[in-house]
Amino acid sequence: MVGVIQPRDHEIATRTLAVDLTANVGNRVSLFGWLLHRRTLGGVTFLILRDRSGTAQAVLDDPGLLKVLAGLQVESVLQVTGVSVQDDRARGGAELHVDTINVLTPVTEPLPFEINRPTLKSGLDFWLDRAPLALRHANKQAVSRVMASVASEFRAAMDRRGFIEIFTPKIVGSATEGGANVFPVSYFDQPAFLAQSPQLYKQIMVGVHERVYEVGPVFRAEPHATSRHLNEYISLDLEFGFIQDHRDVMTLIEGVLREMFEALGSRNAEDLKLLNAVIPAIDTLPIVTFREAQEIILREYGEDCRHEPDLAPQHERWLGEWALRQHGSDFLFVEGYPTAKRPFYTMPSDADHAVSNSFDLLFRGLELITGGQREHRLDHLTAIMTERGIDPTPFGGYLDAFRFGMPAEGGCAIGLERFVTQLVGASNIREVKPFPRDINRLTP
Amino acid sequence: MVGVIQPRDHEIATRTLAVDLTANVGNRVSLFGWLLHRRTLGGVTFLILRDRSGTAQAVLDDPGLLKVLAGLQVESVLQVTGVSVQDDRARGGAELHVDTINVLTPVTEPLPFEINRPTLKSGLDFWLDRAPLALRHANKQAVSRVMASVASEFRAAMDRRGFIEIFTPKIVGSATEGGANVFPVSYFDQPAFLAQSPQLYKQIMVGVHERVYEVGPVFRAEPHATSRHLNEYISLDLEFGFIQDHRDVMTLIEGVLREMFEALGSRNAEDLKLLNAVIPAIDTLPIVTFREAQEIILREYGEDCRHEPDLAPQHERWLGEWALRQHGSDFLFVEGYPTAKRPFYTMPSDADHAVSNSFDLLFRGLELITGGQREHRLDHLTAIMTERGIDPTPFGGYLDAFRFGMPAEGGCAIGLERFVTQLVGASNIREVKPFPRDINRLTP
Repeated sequence: MVGVIQPRDHEIATRTLAVDLTANVGNRVSLFGWLLHRRTLGGVTFLILRDRSGTAQAVLDDPGLLKVLAGLQVESVLQVTGVSVQDDRARGGAELHVDTINVLTPVTEPLPFEINRPTLKSGLDFWLDRAPLALRHANKQAVSRVMASVASEFRAAMDRRGFIEIFTPKIVGSATEGGANVFPVSYFDQPAFLAQSPQLYKQIMVGVHERVYEVGPVFRAEPHATSRHLNEYISLDLEFGFIQDHRDVMTLIEGVLREMFEALGSRNAEDLKLLNAVIPAIDTLPIVTFREAQEIILREYGEDCRHEPDLAPQHERWLGEWALRQHGSDFLFVEGYPTAKRPFYTMPSDADHAVSNSFDLLFRGLELITGGQREHRLDHLTAIMTERGIDPTPFGGYLDAFRFGMPAEGGCAIGLERFVTQLVGASNIREVKPFPRDINRLTP
Repeated sequence: MVGVIQPRDHEIATRTLAVDLTANVGNRVSLFGWLLHRRTLGGVTFLILRDRSGTAQAVLDDPGLLKVLAGLQVESVLQVTGVSVQDDRARGGAELHVDTINVLTPVTEPLPFEINRPTLKSGLDFWLDRAPLALRHANKQAVSRVMASVASEFRAAMDRRGFIEIFTPKIVGSATEGGANVFPVSYFDQPAFLAQSPQLYKQIMVGVHERVYEVGPVFRAEPHATSRHLNEYISLDLEFGFIQDHRDVMTLIEGVLREMFEALGSRNAEDLKLLNAVIPAIDTLPIVTFREAQEIILREYGEDCRHEPDLAPQHERWLGEWALRQHGSDFLFVEGYPTAKRPFYTMPSDADHAVSNSFDLLFRGLELITGGQREHRLDHLTAIMTERGIDPTPFGGYLDAFRFGMPAEGGCAIGLERFVTQLVGASNIREVKPFPRDINRLTP
């Protein structure tokens, strides 16, 4: 009456992956995959089949077999069986001489665009509207593999440093950063919001584990559409205790980035090559203060922004240019942003309270990381909240973490999609996001 | 004018971790951590200090030093400096003979409860209300490390099988499973919801990468509070193509679980010991059909539920008991749930359309995993949607994935918090969730 699972794995029993075709020269094997290309040359038909391991060439000259393919569009799902034969002209050095074709899922409707062309010609919205199909394009696949690796290598670098992964709530009772730009949620009969960041929770968890990180979605209700923003994105967050000041966070993240890029360079070598992406070198990264950055902009680009409390996107682009020219660096740390423009939990500098122990890291002229030291002294924290008119009531649990013993601590957050955008040189962050969310886009 | 980061790491320069005290016997070192215990015995004061690596004992007999500690509560953050001395009575075989204490963050308010007792005596709500402090308890810390390991080992098992990690949107334009129990979001001026699961997106992504997984939050607006449900939880999702039927999914997940538990047993040995948790054995897992399960319940427990379309929690508990007694197994696969009670994308069995190619996996009498084969034939999929009165319009992108070539595919989802609940034998899922969300609880 009761069965047990027999060692049964449909794939292992029947399938050879494209990447293993060469190792199977002389064997009769089956490839399973999507039809990517078909062309006929002198009575011989060549098929390119795509599976998760890559592509392989299959050859057939039997007119009977060709009939099976009649009316089939590319992206049809096929099982093709035959003998693997060495052929130096084929990618990988072998091709399949097909004797049997099994159409697993026919595609008969014409595709809305040519998925098998090297480049995507249409505009961005055209592709985003058709994402379920468009994401199968080789370039999009490569981007998505790179994104997975970035997240994975971030976690690996954190694990190596004794950080613990945490999972903090995304539905929260109050706005994390005490401001606007939150999405309200109908949470039964209580007012609730989507978390703008795991900031307060990761700080609380420093009291538990000292060193924590999280990879998860954050939500920003910014009512504008730019090439740099998404309303929902993945944040790579870290936070740790027993630091001296924000420079410890900068040191740590510099090491983390170095390891991440090094791993990406080998793990995704083919993807990066396909995307013409260049891994940046990370030696010692240049640092300028916020005030120095403004002076550089005035001196080098003639714009006087010294009265402004923040850097505009154009300023960041100029600074990126300057860092490359002056220091040969794709990165530039800017530290010491005005305290007044940073969130309430930001630690002011001892030397000058108007300047904060915070930093941004620009990557090729775009803010990739924001971080700094946090105010861990309960009396200072409540004082700044009073000063800024922030009602402490919803922050009760947060403040308890500081009431009951918190070391000096800090952390930072990396925008995953920005990381990939800048790495592959995309001109719009939506190019690297499978299903982006913005003020105009909620589907697919 | 421009600095470069000097190789500077506050921690490396100044700190020894508790775990490294023994390796430093004879050296003068500093421990940084939270004061966990203090007791005085014959003029000698013993401190237990907690840091991320564990605990260490520090000893002092200088009355001047004791004055520094006057009025300090446990959880105060200290730097204690002295010589590491071998002492077999101390945990780890060494203790610190303190000559200097630096109070980094004093705690002067009495704690609302005794965080350093072996067991947590008060009721669950008492602890949840005070989570920022309560999570520092040794047992809670251990649970949270186990949870991190479960997620990490799931990803590792997926990576080994060639699955790609994906990040799908949590704000969606329509209810994923075509039903109720979704949280509405105010998304600018469009109606939107929180994703109940990444189901439709992970299926779409099978067309891109064949094998995908995601670790992320899901949101269920179930308006009740049970010991098994959370309104926001972490789902470990996987989906893959080129299967024969749901049995391939069962085979895969059985192997994944085996690897996960094996890794947990060594990686979290101390945590599991502290929590009195026992790693389940996984040989070949027993399988019963849904109908057989109902017969077992009638025969063994006298309740006739054969007319019901689903299993109730008590039924699952009985089946768990039965599987342990009859098969020595902490697990039981139940397959072939009635098609009518499963979501529209569920593949019906070839032999009997009223029965579906779906399964649940019970772990110690609780549904841990739900999965199955999906309907990948476009015409069947649209027919079932019509039959169920589901408007296909918001599913346009989803259906395109099937229109343009989808192999037979399936997958499943593991509830991360349920995994940990059952592993550590918690009686309520909230015991293992740092900041649970339920109909009554939105803070901290």
